[in-house]
Amino acid sequence: MTISWRCMKALPNRGNIGIFNRSYYEEMLVVRVHPKYLAKQKVPPQLMTKKIWKERAEDIRNVEQYLTRNGVVIRKFFLNVSKKEQQRRFLERIDNPLKNWKFSSNDAAERDYWDDYMEAYEEMIRTTATSYAPWYVVPADNKWFTRVVVAGAVIEALADLNLAYPKVDKSKQADLAVARKKLVGKV
Amino acid sequence: MTISWRCMKALPNRGNIGIFNRSYYEEMLVVRVHPKYLAKQKVPPQLMTKKIWKERAEDIRNVEQYLTRNGVVIRKFFLNVSKKEQQRRFLERIDNPLKNWKFSSNDAAERDYWDDYMEAYEEMIRTTATSYAPWYVVPADNKWFTRVVVAGAVIEALADLNLAYPKVDKSKQADLAVARKKLVGKV
Repeated sequence: MTISWRCMKALPNRGNIGIFNRSYYEEMLVVRVHPKYLAKQKVPPQLMTKKIWKERAEDIRNVEQYLTRNGVVIRKFFLNVSKKEQQRRFLERIDNPLKNWKFSSNDAAERDYWDDYMEAYEEMIRTTATSYAPWYVVPADNKWFTRVVVAGAVIEALADLNLAYPKVDKSKQADLAVARKKLVGKV
Repeated sequence: MTISWRCMKALPNRGNIGIFNRSYYEEMLVVRVHPKYLAKQKVPPQLMTKKIWKERAEDIRNVEQYLTRNGVVIRKFFLNVSKKEQQRRFLERIDNPLKNWKFSSNDAAERDYWDDYMEAYEEMIRTTATSYAPWYVVPADNKWFTRVVVAGAVIEALADLNLAYPKVDKSKQADLAVARKKLVGKV
């Protein structure tokens, strides 16, 4: 329906962690590089103006502000793979029979649009990085390094929550004492 | 989860009309009049500041702006029933056995908070009425009048869409001509 409908539907419940791969940020990427996909979204023509990318960035900032105000902590990771490393990985998928299943000729074809994507990524990050929902641009040619950076950011975000077990009140303490007596009385 | 999650999930598909009764505007009403319901939303305490109603109004304006940019036309109706007419309707539900099922003692109890609700309604309408998603405050003591006003606004919104059947292109016209010949040739 609307650009972020599917993501809103899949948001994690309170107290849970959700991981989105691509997410609504696709609405500023593949449809920008390939106008034919944008056309398929059937947005009424009078709303398809040159402002559309600015508007989408604003809509994303707004929805993330709204989520933040409702207690959702957002951290965004851009895994930055070099063109050379991508070539190496695609060749490996072609040459190694165990990885053949991972290869998509479509992914490989998109390499022709590398520069367009870089430009779209850059503007996406620049226009949607906020204090409440920061982007982490992570060098991703070495997987171990990527993992350390992402895990570090997640740990930091969790630590900032200052989580603690619920404090037990007087009446609950009394319950515990009764239960203890009962448990000790007979085995 | 978050305040408008359920409504986003229920949005109509492109080309459809959806009717929301109450909707996410409840997030500025019953929870405002009764702080105990607000507490149940489990928003982290540090986010529950005095700004919360301003923030919710802003979040609502933003999400409606986003929907509008995606081709969703929004019209909002406040059916304004007087305190006296509400009393008459509740009494009718108590006295007329055929309407007993409609009566809720909870609704009747909420009359004690009439002024608080009026204040909350007023601020809700004032802070969320926009050019793209206007509020219609409709006198609702007479149902026939309410219906005329709402139907009129819906008709106007539909007319503004300038809807038309799809134009048929040359190749489709050729198809039609072939089909016509075939149909006429043998009965």
